Formats: sequence, C-alpha cells, structure tokens
Amino acid sequence: MSSYSKKRGLPPGSLVFTGTKKTSEISIEEIEYNQTNYSRKEIKNIKNINYSAGSDNIYWININGLHETNIIESIGNIFSINALTLEDILNLQQRPKTEIFGDYIYITLKMLTYNGDSIDNEQISIVLGKNYVITFQEKPGDIFDPLRLRIQSQSGKIRSSGSDYLAYALIDIVVDNYFVLLEKLNSEIEVFEENLIYSFEKETLTQIYRLKRENLVMRNSIWPVRELISQLERSESDLLNDRIQIYFRDLYDHTIQVIDTAEVSREILSGLIDLYLSGISNKTNEVMKVLTIISTIFIPLTFIVGLYGMNFKFMPELSWKWGYIAVWAIMLLITFFMIIYIKRKKWL
Amino acid sequence: MSSYSKKRGLPPGSLVFTGTKKTSEISIEEIEYNQTNYSRKEIKNIKNINYSAGSDNIYWININGLHETNIIESIGNIFSINALTLEDILNLQQRPKTEIFGDYIYITLKMLTYNGDSIDNEQISIVLGKNYVITFQEKPGDIFDPLRLRIQSQSGKIRSSGSDYLAYALIDIVVDNYFVLLEKLNSEIEVFEENLIYSFEKETLTQIYRLKRENLVMRNSIWPVRELISQLERSESDLLNDRIQIYFRDLYDHTIQVIDTAEVSREILSGLIDLYLSGISNKTNEVMKVLTIISTIFIPLTFIVGLYGMNFKFMPELSWKWGYIAVWAIMLLITFFMIIYIKRKKWL
Amino acid sequence: MSSYSKKRGLPPGSLVFTGTKKTSEISIEEIEYNQTNYSRKEIKNIKNINYSAGSDNIYWININGLHETNIIESIGNIFSINALTLEDILNLQQRPKTEIFGDYIYITLKMLTYNGDSIDNEQISIVLGKNYVITFQEKPGDIFDPLRLRIQSQSGKIRSSGSDYLAYALIDIVVDNYFVLLEKLNSEIEVFEENLIYSFEKETLTQIYRLKRENLVMRNSIWPVRELISQLERSESDLLNDRIQIYFRDLYDHTIQVIDTAEVSREILSGLIDLYLSGISNKTNEVMKVLTIISTIFIPLTFIVGLYGMNFKFMPELSWKWGYIAVWAIMLLITFFMIIYIKRKKWL
Amino acid sequence: MSSYSKKRGLPPGSLVFTGTKKTSEISIEEIEYNQTNYSRKEIKNIKNINYSAGSDNIYWININGLHETNIIESIGNIFSINALTLEDILNLQQRPKTEIFGDYIYITLKMLTYNGDSIDNEQISIVLGKNYVITFQEKPGDIFDPLRLRIQSQSGKIRSSGSDYLAYALIDIVVDNYFVLLEKLNSEIEVFEENLIYSFEKETLTQIYRLKRENLVMRNSIWPVRELISQLERSESDLLNDRIQIYFRDLYDHTIQVIDTAEVSREILSGLIDLYLSGISNKTNEVMKVLTIISTIFIPLTFIVGLYGMNFKFMPELSWKWGYIAVWAIMLLITFFMIIYIKRKKWL
Amino acid sequence: MSSYSKKRGLPPGSLVFTGTKKTSEISIEEIEYNQTNYSRKEIKNIKNINYSAGSDNIYWININGLHETNIIESIGNIFSINALTLEDILNLQQRPKTEIFGDYIYITLKMLTYNGDSIDNEQISIVLGKNYVITFQEKPGDIFDPLRLRIQSQSGKIRSSGSDYLAYALIDIVVDNYFVLLEKLNSEIEVFEENLIYSFEKETLTQIYRLKRENLVMRNSIWPVRELISQLERSESDLLNDRIQIYFRDLYDHTIQVIDTAEVSREILSGLIDLYLSGISNKTNEVMKVLTIISTIFIPLTFIVGLYGMNFKFMPELSWKWGYIAVWAIMLLITFFMIIYIKRKKWL
Repeated sequence: MSSYSKKRGLPPGSLVFTGTKKTSEISIEEIEYNQTNYSRKEIKNIKNINYSAGSDNIYWININGLHETNIIESIGNIFSINALTLEDILNLQQRPKTEIFGDYIYITLKMLTYNGDSIDNEQISIVLGKNYVITFQEKPGDIFDPLRLRIQSQSGKIRSSGSDYLAYALIDIVVDNYFVLLEKLNSEIEVFEENLIYSFEKETLTQIYRLKRENLVMRNSIWPVRELISQLERSESDLLNDRIQIYFRDLYDHTIQVIDTAEVSREILSGLIDLYLSGISNKTNEVMKVLTIISTIFIPLTFIVGLYGMNFKFMPELSWKWGYIAVWAIMLLITFFMIIYIKRKKWL
Repeated sequence: MSSYSKKRGLPPGSLVFTGTKKTSEISIEEIEYNQTNYSRKEIKNIKNINYSAGSDNIYWININGLHETNIIESIGNIFSINALTLEDILNLQQRPKTEIFGDYIYITLKMLTYNGDSIDNEQISIVLGKNYVITFQEKPGDIFDPLRLRIQSQSGKIRSSGSDYLAYALIDIVVDNYFVLLEKLNSEIEVFEENLIYSFEKETLTQIYRLKRENLVMRNSIWPVRELISQLERSESDLLNDRIQIYFRDLYDHTIQVIDTAEVSREILSGLIDLYLSGISNKTNEVMKVLTIISTIFIPLTFIVGLYGMNFKFMPELSWKWGYIAVWAIMLLITFFMIIYIKRKKWL
Repeated sequence: MSSYSKKRGLPPGSLVFTGTKKTSEISIEEIEYNQTNYSRKEIKNIKNINYSAGSDNIYWININGLHETNIIESIGNIFSINALTLEDILNLQQRPKTEIFGDYIYITLKMLTYNGDSIDNEQISIVLGKNYVITFQEKPGDIFDPLRLRIQSQSGKIRSSGSDYLAYALIDIVVDNYFVLLEKLNSEIEVFEENLIYSFEKETLTQIYRLKRENLVMRNSIWPVRELISQLERSESDLLNDRIQIYFRDLYDHTIQVIDTAEVSREILSGLIDLYLSGISNKTNEVMKVLTIISTIFIPLTFIVGLYGMNFKFMPELSWKWGYIAVWAIMLLITFFMIIYIKRKKWL
Repeated sequence: MSSYSKKRGLPPGSLVFTGTKKTSEISIEEIEYNQTNYSRKEIKNIKNINYSAGSDNIYWININGLHETNIIESIGNIFSINALTLEDILNLQQRPKTEIFGDYIYITLKMLTYNGDSIDNEQISIVLGKNYVITFQEKPGDIFDPLRLRIQSQSGKIRSSGSDYLAYALIDIVVDNYFVLLEKLNSEIEVFEENLIYSFEKETLTQIYRLKRENLVMRNSIWPVRELISQLERSESDLLNDRIQIYFRDLYDHTIQVIDTAEVSREILSGLIDLYLSGISNKTNEVMKVLTIISTIFIPLTFIVGLYGMNFKFMPELSWKWGYIAVWAIMLLITFFMIIYIKRKKWL
Repeated sequence: MSSYSKKRGLPPGSLVFTGTKKTSEISIEEIEYNQTNYSRKEIKNIKNINYSAGSDNIYWININGLHETNIIESIGNIFSINALTLEDILNLQQRPKTEIFGDYIYITLKMLTYNGDSIDNEQISIVLGKNYVITFQEKPGDIFDPLRLRIQSQSGKIRSSGSDYLAYALIDIVVDNYFVLLEKLNSEIEVFEENLIYSFEKETLTQIYRLKRENLVMRNSIWPVRELISQLERSESDLLNDRIQIYFRDLYDHTIQVIDTAEVSREILSGLIDLYLSGISNKTNEVMKVLTIISTIFIPLTFIVGLYGMNFKFMPELSWKWGYIAVWAIMLLITFFMIIYIKRKKWL
C-alpha cells in the first residue's frame, strides 16, 4: 500500500509501476501447445515472442516482474491491449475484478502466499485472448508448476481445450491456494484454542490479533473474486466457450466455500479474543483473592501483636500470667472465623 | 478441514478423497421397491447391483464409506454420473448445494450428530435419478432407519410415490435432525443460564465458548440448506413431480425455523458471555471491597499501636495513667467512624 | 422447545402434538352469527358442531387445548383441512407464517402473554374458510373476549362483514397485544434506567439479561408476522375481500411499529448493559482509590513508628529530648505531602 | 409510549386519544390565502371554519391539542376524512408514514424539540387536500412561524403555489429542525470529547448514555421520513403538482443527509463509550501502581524494623555498635533496588 | 457543521452561505482552451468572464471562496444555473451527490486534506455544461495544479477532449486524493500497531480514537461518491460523451477500492482498541501480581516479628537461647513455601 501517491494527478492510461520491485530481472516464459505439439522457451528479448494471431495453437505467455514499464508496453503492443488495462496491470492497488473487452478479457486477482510469518499478497493479472493467455506476476513462483506439468504431460482436458480453459485452470489454482492458506490459518487457530484453556501468555493476544489481520487481508482478497467469477460465468463473450460455464460454476461454488470458511475463522477468532480477555479477568480475580485472604487474616493479627508491643506503663494485661496464652487464643479464634468467612465466600 | 491440499493443482474431475477414513470397509445396501414388492440386500460386489434403468421400481442405493475412489467411480459408471459430480461427492469440504443436471439431481448436505462432547459433521450426498436415489455417507449410521421401516411397512405415501419423494424424505430426516441437535444445544444453554446466576466457575466460559463454536458449525451447515431447498422447490426439472413441491415448501419452512432457532441460540450465548464477564467483574469488586474494608479499619489502628511501641525516652503519654485506656478509646472511635464511612459508601 | 424429537423420522402429515399439555380438558366454543342473529355454545362432542358449508352465516370455532390429536383430526375432516396443515397446527415449533390454499387460508402466529415473571409463548392457529374461522389455542384465555363482545353487541363492522374480517380482527388483537407487552417491557426498562444511576445491585444484570431475553423472544415472534401480513395483503385469494386490504395494510403498519419499538428496546437494553458494566468498573475504581489513599498515608507512617520501636542499644535519636516531637513533625509533613499528592491526582 | 393499552380490543376506526394531554385547551387557527389576498383568524367554534371546497383559495387549518376526540371528528366530517385516518391522527404511537387516498394525502411525522435536558417527541399529522392543508399538533408551538411570515409577507413562491407546496414547506421545516437538533447534539458530543481527554467524572457515562438514547430516538423518528418522502416523490396523485417533485427530491437529499449525520453521531458516541471505559481502566491501573509502589517499598522495610523490635534476650545484632547504622544501610539498599525494579517496569 | 440553523424556515432557493469564511477574498480563475490554443487569467470582476455559449472552446471557471452570495448569484445568471443548485453550492452540509439537469450536471463532493493533525473537509462543487466546467471551492488550493499543467502542456487527451473529460479529470483527482490520505492514515496505524506491542501510553487510545474518527469522516465522504459516479456512468445525458463511460467505470473501480481500504482500516482500528484495552488489563494484572507476591511473603513475616515484639512478662520463647534463631528458621521456611506456592500459580 506504499505508493499510490506516485500516480496522483497523472492522466489516465499513464503507465506507472506502483509497487516495490520484487525481483531484480524480468523473466518471460512462452508455452505454445495444441493437441499434439508442445514447446516451452524462455524469452530474453520481447521480439522473440513468436505469436501468430491466426494460429490454432494456444500461447501462454508468463511475465514475472512488472517494474520495467517499457516491456509491459511492448507486450501491450503485440497483443493490442488497451492502455487503461496496462495501467491496471501495473497498479498493484487493484481490487480483484474482470473487464470484458471485444477481443480480450482482463482478469486480476490476488495470489496469497505464506512466507513464514505473514501473508504475502501478490497481484496476478490474466489477459485472455482468442488463442493466448498472458499472465503477469510480480515475482517468479512455482504455484503454476502443476499446470505446466499437466500441459506437458497431456493430463486432463487441457491440451484439447481452448485458451478459456487455460485461464480457468489458472484461476482455479489461485482459488485452491486460498483453501490451503485457510487450512494453515485454521490449524494455527486450533493450536491457540487448546492453549488458551491451559495458559495465558502476554503475547497470545498479539498473535490472535495477527491472525485476525491475516484473516482480514484474506477475506479482502477473496470476496471480490466471487463477483469476478460470477461475471465470467454469466458473460456472453465469444472468448468463452459454452462448455466452460460448468467449470466456472464449479469454481464459483469453491469460492463461496472459501469465503464461508474465512468468515467462520473470523467468528472463531473474535470468540478467542473474548476468551482471552475473560481469562485475564479471571486471573486478576484469582490474584486479588489470594491477596485479600492473606490480608484479611494477617492484618487484624498484626494489629493485635502491635497492641501488646506498646510501651505504656499501665497495661495490666502485660503482667497477667495467662496474657500471652490468651492473645494466642484470641488470634487463633479470629483466624478460625476468618477462614470460615472466606470459605463461605467461596474464595478457597 | 484437514487436507484440501491433496487436490491442489489437479485437473477438475480428478477423484480424490479429501477426508479421513471413518469406516474400515465400504458397505453398500440396495433397497428396491414398488407399490407391492419390497426387497433389500447387502451388496458385496459392485457388479451385483441389479439396477435396470427401464424398470418402474424405485432403487435406493446407500453407500457407507467414501475412501475407495474406484468403487465410487464404478457407481458413477453404472448410473452415468458426471466426473465433476463424483469429485464433489468425494470432496468433503463441500458446501451444501444442489446441482440440477438433465438426468439426475445432485444434492449434498451436512449431517450433524452429537458424539458425546462435540458435534460431528458428516457429509451426505444424494443423487436423484428417474427411478433411483443413491446416498453416499462417510460411515454407517442409523439416522435413516425410520425411513427404511416406513418403506418396509408401507407407512405413509412412500411406497406409492416416486424417487423424488424418497429424496425429499431423506432430506427431511436430515433437517429434522438439526432440530433435535438444536434442542440438545438449547437445553445445555438453559442449564448454563441457571447456573450462571448462582456460581461462576473458571471452566464456564470455556464451555460457553464451546457451545458458541458448535452453534457456529451448525449455522454454517444449515444456512446453505435453505437455498438448496428453495432451488429444488423452484426447479422445473422433470425429475421432480409437481405434487412434490408442497413437501419441499414445507421443508423450506422447517429450515427457516431451524435457522431462526439457531440465531436465537447465538444471541443467547453472546448474552451469556456478557453475563459471565460482568459476573467476574462483580466478584473482583466484592473481593476488593473486603480487602479495602479490612485495610481501612486496621491499617490506621496498626499505626497507632506502632506509635506507642516506640522506645523514645521522652514520650509523656506512656507514663500517663489513662494513656492505655485513651488509646483504646481513640481506636474505637476511629473504628466507629470508619464503619460509618463504609456503610455510607454502601460497601457493606 | 422441548420435544421436536418426537417427530423425527415420521412421514409428513403425521399428527403429533409436540408441546406440553397446558390445559387438562379440550374445550370447544362455537359462535354463529350474521347481520341479525347471534348464537354461542360450548361444544362437548365434536359431532354437535352444526356447521353448514352453504350457509350465509359466519361460524367461529374456537378450540382450546391441542393434546388430543383425534379431536383435531375430526375438525380437519369436517372442514376438509389438509393433513400437512393439521400437522402444522399441532407442531408448536411453528414459525409464524401463512399458507394460502384453494378453499382456506392457514395462519399461525404466537400469542405472547406476561405471566408474572416471564413471557409465555402460545401458538395460535387460524384457519379461514369461506364462511368460517377456526382458531386453535393451547389453553383457554380471555384475549379474544373484547372481540366476542363486539360480535355480540354488534359494535363496529364485524357483524356486517365476512369471515375475512373476523380473521383480521383476531390477528389485530394478537398484534395489539404485542404493543401492550412492549409497553410493559419498556416501563420495566425505564425503572432500571433510573435505578442504574443511583445504585448497582448484583441482581441488576441478571434482570437486564432476562429483559433482553424476553425482548429476543418477542422480536422472534413478531418479525415473521410482518411478512405474514404482507402476504395476506398482497394475496389474490377469493377468500379475502378487496375491502379487507386496507385493514391488512393498517395492520402491517402496526406491525412495523411494533418491530421498531422492539428494536429500540433492544438497543436501550444493550446500552444499559454497558452502563451497568462501567458502573461496576467505576465502583471498583473508587474502592481501589480509598484503599490506596489509606495505604499511601499510613504505610510509610507505620514504617517510621516501627523504626523507633527497634531495640538497638545504640540509637541516638531515642534519647534526644525532642526526638518524639521530631518524629511527629516528620509524620505530619509526610501526611501533608501525601494529601497534596492525592489531591493532585484527583483521587479525592 | 404510555397507553396503547387503551386501544386493545377496540374495533378499527375507534377514535381514542392515546397520549397525555399536553395543552389544556384546543386552539384552532385558519389561514386563507391566494396570490393577492391573505386572512388569518382564531377559530373558537368548529362551525366557524369557512372552508369552501370549490374555492381557489388555499386553506391552512392548524389544530393544537388532540385530546378532544369530538373536535377531531367534526374536522373529519367537514373535510370528509376516513375514520381510519382520524384514528391514526389520534394514536400518538404512529410511525412516520404517508397514505395516499383519492382526495387527500395523509402524512404523519415526529417533530423533535429540545426542552432543556431531553428531546421532546411530538407527533405532527398533515392532511393535504386539493385546496387545503390541515395540521394537527399535540400542543401549540412556534416552529411554523417562519412559514406564517412567508405566507403573510409573500416571500418565496408560497403564495403563488398550491396546497402541495404548503405541505412541502411544512415537512421541510420539520426536517430542517432535525438538522438543528443534530447540530445541538453534535456540539454537546464535541464538548464531551474534549473533556474525556482531561478528566473522567462519574456522571460522564450517564450523560453519554443519555445522548445515545436521544440519538436513538432521533434516528427512529427520522429513518421512516426518508421512505415517506420517497413515496411522495414517486406518487402519481393528482394532488401533487409535477413541479413539486423537484422540491421533494431536494427534501429527500436533505433527509439522507440528516440520517447520515445521525449515524455518524451514533458511531462517535459508541467510540466515546469505549474511550470512557478505557479511561476508567487506565485510572484503576494508575491507582494500583501507586499502591503497589508504596507497598513494595515499605512492606519489606516495615518487616525489618519489626524484626529488630523483637524482645528476644539473645539477639546479638541489638548490642552491636553499628547495628542501627547497618539496618539503615540495608534498608536504603533495599529501597534503591526496589526503585530500580519499579523504574524497569515503567511504573514511574 | 456549525450553522445549518441559519437556513431554518427560509424558502427553498434562498442563497445562504452556511460555512465559515475560509479565505478573505474570493478569487476567480478562467482557463480557456481548445486543441491548439490555451489562455488563463485571473478574473477581478465577474463581468470580465468572456464566456460564449456557442464557442467550441472549453471554459474552466474556478471560484475560490463562497462567502459572497452575490458573486455566486452572478455566476448563476451567466450560466443559467437553477436557484436550488446555487443554494446547494452554498450549503456546505451537502452530501456528495449529482443532479442531472437538461443543460448542466451538478456534482458535489468533499475534498479531504490533511492539515498537520486533523482532516480538513472542504466541499467542492462542479457544474458541467456543454462547453464549460465551473468549480467552486471554499478556499484556494493546489490540488488541481497537476491538471492545470496537463492542460497547459497538452499531456494526455485532455486538450482534445470535451468538458465532460475535464469534469472526469477533476473528480479523478479528488478520488486519487482519498487514496493518498488513506495511505497516510494506514501508515499512522502501522506505527501504532508496532508500538502497542512494546509499550502502552495513556494517550495511545485518544490517538487511536482520533484515527477512528478521521476514518469515519473519510468513509462518510467517500461512500456517497460511489453512487454519484455510478449515476454518471449510467446517465444518458447528452452532456456526457459515450467514450467517457469507460473512464467513469475505471473511476468507479477506484472508488470501490478506496472504500475497501477504508473499511479495512476501520476493522484494524477496532482491533487495535481491543489490543490496547487488553494491554491495560494485562498491565493491571501484572501490577497486582507484584503487590500480591510482596504482600503474601512479608505480611505473615511482619506478623511473626510483631508477635515477639510484644511486651508480655511471661513469654517463655523470649528467653530461650535459640529463640531468635528459631524465628529466623520459621520465617525462612514460610518464605520458602510461599515462593513455591507463587511459582506453582505461575505468577513469577
């Protein structure tokens, strides 16, 4: 969320990269396939992209790294992508959305990854054309590797389907990934739940709060995906084959399921906060009780022994033979009644 | 919610069981009936299913256990069920939903059972065809026994109705079961309510929290059922007889009632948490008051007796004849005023 | 909410009474009237109901007590009421709703009565036919007495109107009754509001909680009534005269008003809980302050007097002539500064 | 909210005044005007109302006081107002609403006035006919004085417009008045905000609570006005000139603005409550810290001086030459370390 | 929000400035441009505006300062702006909205600026006509400078587009500015988050509260903008070119994104409040524990030493040889067990 300010006052369509560079070099990968053939190559120079608009092959161009706006612009020229779309690709403060144009569909969503102790929020842009799909990522990643393998090994229907199926498969992987993350979050929550019953540590709330924040980030990334997929499902664009609708519908169900799970996590987390807070109150109450018990018993006794520590000349009790014993008796009596009182109050 | 990760990156339609095995062996039961005849048998080998698509009999195939994907696949072949549907049957992270296809309707919902100290969440899938109903459960259970009895004993309209009525009766039992569980939950809540007024124990909140969580799980399983039934009611599928609509409408009303009850429980539970928290505060307040009363009275007195315990050579009071009596008088006076002060503050 | 379990697994349309018997004997009352004539009688035997479907008279049959299912069944036969409707009449876990059939309209709502210390929730079912209205209550009550009087004394338009007007008048009384209950609840709340400012008692929250629960029960009974009346208003059933719509619209406005009032009560109650909780905190704070003031002043003084109570041989101060006076001076000084400190902290 | 019970069981259209008499005498005022003429008179006897249905003049009849139902009934007869409407005028528990009849429009809303320390909630009813407007108020007030002046002084378009414009102007004044009240409420809130930072007094919360309640009353009176005006705007009644729509639309925007402001106040108030509660916690925490500091330092010291106050015969330290000095040294050391400990804990 | 009262009772269309004068002098600036020419001048006298309705040039009139109603009225006359619109321009309590008239579109929104320690809320009104745009600001500002530069330097499409594009560009700058403000708010929040974990200061909550309030103000200014832009997007006014729709759609997406971000901030802030409150509780708990530990150990010891400070004649222990040693032994024993007890309770 660092630098939207860079864009302030610029005309729409200005290409400005609003993120922080996550990879030093931009890498481009081209996969070309049809039912029978398959090739894959690293592109060093933009001009080496051998895309042909008329071909029956499917082209998948994957770009890792967005900080060189001129490369993005060149890609835009090759596939005739609108300047406003290119601007959206570069603006990492995008909300997940889809925009359906005449000759391509623009889809942007957030890929969430767990980097040890917090959730990383990477923007993925997908441009789906008649016979190509272009994906823009902020940095190289292995999330799409199973798909690459499925293409290469001809598993499933991917080699025999069009570019729309490829786009679907990409979104499907991103959504599946939300599930995996939520599972991780939920198992962390379960650990907290069990611990909360036995011990309260100071850092616990900070960590629940961190989980809550991560949950918030996730919900925020996932909610708009629902509408996005629903739009794709209901769209009548020529770019989307009729047979693809059933897949988008399935994906839509998955997204709802992800959202449900995230909402449940949220409720559980806020329940945990209540539990934690009441745990502190309980502990304070317990500490107070100990203090009060000790004080209630010993403060009166201390007064009594102080009383007979006075140095008055005329204190008849002091010279009584049974005086000392009597004081002990009185003190034991007081202690006895105090303990009964405390028992009655159920402090012990 | 353990293992969605198993499915990540696989093509849609891949059959993967995402749950934990709940029963060691898969058991299959086939009930075949019409208005006059009735037969029931255990199936050991899938090939023994003697289903005939053209028959006027109704077939109810009940499968307990989902961990052997090849059995599920065989069933899928016999009744020509779509691969995506089979995938959904095996994926236990399904949200309750219905999908209406040309020649069958797929319905999935959650069966909730109370296993001693928590709620068990089992996924039930129902496939409703022209003259058959297939039910998939994770483990054997007796929840459908009353229905088996009704079929066998020809009670009600079940023997004279079609497969749609059988499917309705199955969903009806699952929904009725929600009621039973909510009643159990509510009676537990009532016990808590009464106890909270008399005593606060440390574990109480943990248990309220557990009830809250169970309520959350239930609401989450029940909410989508509403929409599911509404879809069935409004559906124009040939598989659903016109006369069945009135039953689905009745079921819809029941579901709303279940949801209402669950929402009321939720509000009561969150009220109980408030009550509990304020109970702790009250107790701390009371403990504090006792400590303060004891301290307020005895600390000044202890000071006074300490005063006359000093060993100064020149302390005229010490040799006064009435010194000791005077100190007692002063102390009683202080005590008296302190008690008045405390009474005024309404601490006693 | 006791016993839904009784119904589990039974076929739909099974007549099972799910409540607890509230009256030992079932009593049936029949009122027959038209513009000129009026008769009223107690029915001992179901067969004595002299209803004639073709008559121009209006019949109002009122049944008190639902625990004898065969009586309900007989009534159902006489007026040809659907088995599912009869089941709904006997099932006391019904949500308020209306169902419009060809020759009758079924309406069920909750009658709330205040029985000394809690709200009683009785289910009323109304079956409205061409020339009859049947009402089912759990136990005899006097809530409809004003209506009986209006019929008998020909006040208002009731004698010159049809059965739909009678049904409207019945619902109207039930809704008016909600108002009366809310007024009672609100006046209880006002008493609490005034008290909360002056004194906090331990039971207060339990009682606020009770009010909150009652409010919850009421809202739950009233909310669905809104939709119910709206359905009646918009219905195009032949059983509802066109001129009745204006009355239902008026009733609808009343219901909204009841709901509004109940929602306001709810917000006030949750405000009261906040007020109460902060009251406890305030009191604890005040108690703490007294303890701290006493301790802050006397603990250092007690230390000083203890100091000169030591029995060291070589303590020069003890033999100083002004030693004792000096100690007093020091103690007064300390007290003085402590009081200034406390005043600054605004604890006094 | 006192006495809805008065109406229970009465037939609809029964004229019952449900409020408390706010003015001893009913006063009636008639203003008659057209583009050129203007007259105003007090009406003592209902019969003196010289309204003519066919006249081109505009009549504004203002009635202050509603407790004499026969006067209201007479007015009803003169202007042929429906009995149900008259009942609504007299029933002060009305929710703001509008009802559009063939020859008049009934509008009722709440006029809020601030009477020193709480908000007064007066019901205003407006009946708009072809050439007349009747306003019913519970007691005389000066809120409409500016409008009287505008009519008399021919300012604005009022003299050249119809009765609909007059009705609009009346509602406009009521809505404007909400703004004024909200401003007063908001300035009170601002005072609290500033004070909360510097000092916490016991009454503060009671007062925030009062503000919250007032805000609640206001929101409840204002919310339904939105719908009311929207209905008037969209209405196709002949009584409303086409040119009036733009004014109602403007009024609608104002109402939304009022609602927005009231909602913002609500959020600020609930924020203030949080602030206040945390303020108490903070103060308790501070008080506790002082107590703990004093105790932590002096309790161990008091133990030490007590130790050497013991009267054992064989206590070698007592006769050491440097014993007394050594004890002082030890006590200073303890004090020193305690202060360091306390500083580390950041309690000072 | 000071002075809506000024307007109470005035006829609609009365021009009253409801704000506080923010600039001493009203300054007016006129920019006239077409694809080839560009001129800019300061207007001292309203008559110097050389606007020609038939010209193909675009005129942008920017007025800073609204407190001289006659100047606003003259502008209104020149561009034939409706009196109600002029009233809205002067009324600073406007909610962001748009009104589409035949020959102009009126748009009003809030410009938020951060003036050191709080958010300033300035109302901007935009009147968009066929070949002109008039902007009304409360005081001069530099927010539109980048746009002035773009016009002057012919960057982007602004010089070749119509007045609708100019209006779009103005709104775009205001919306972009929301982003910048939210970023500032979010970075302030992040600072708090980090600090909260390490230290709690008294002012923290006051500041979180201030952030919350600012967030509230922002959300309130931004929410209605969404609808406003949506109306412009869907509008079929001739004043809006078809090609402009894509820009408004883009702007709409941005606004949703701004709203999302603001809502996330809101949730984070309320999480922070929880965190802060629990932090105080934790600290109180910790302070209490120290007090209790000290008291638990030393109060019994002090009692014992007090015991042997008594002056009874017959206290055999006092003359025992090992008495003093024995007391020490007992005290060490007590201390030892107390420490074990405290360790068990996990207070240390």
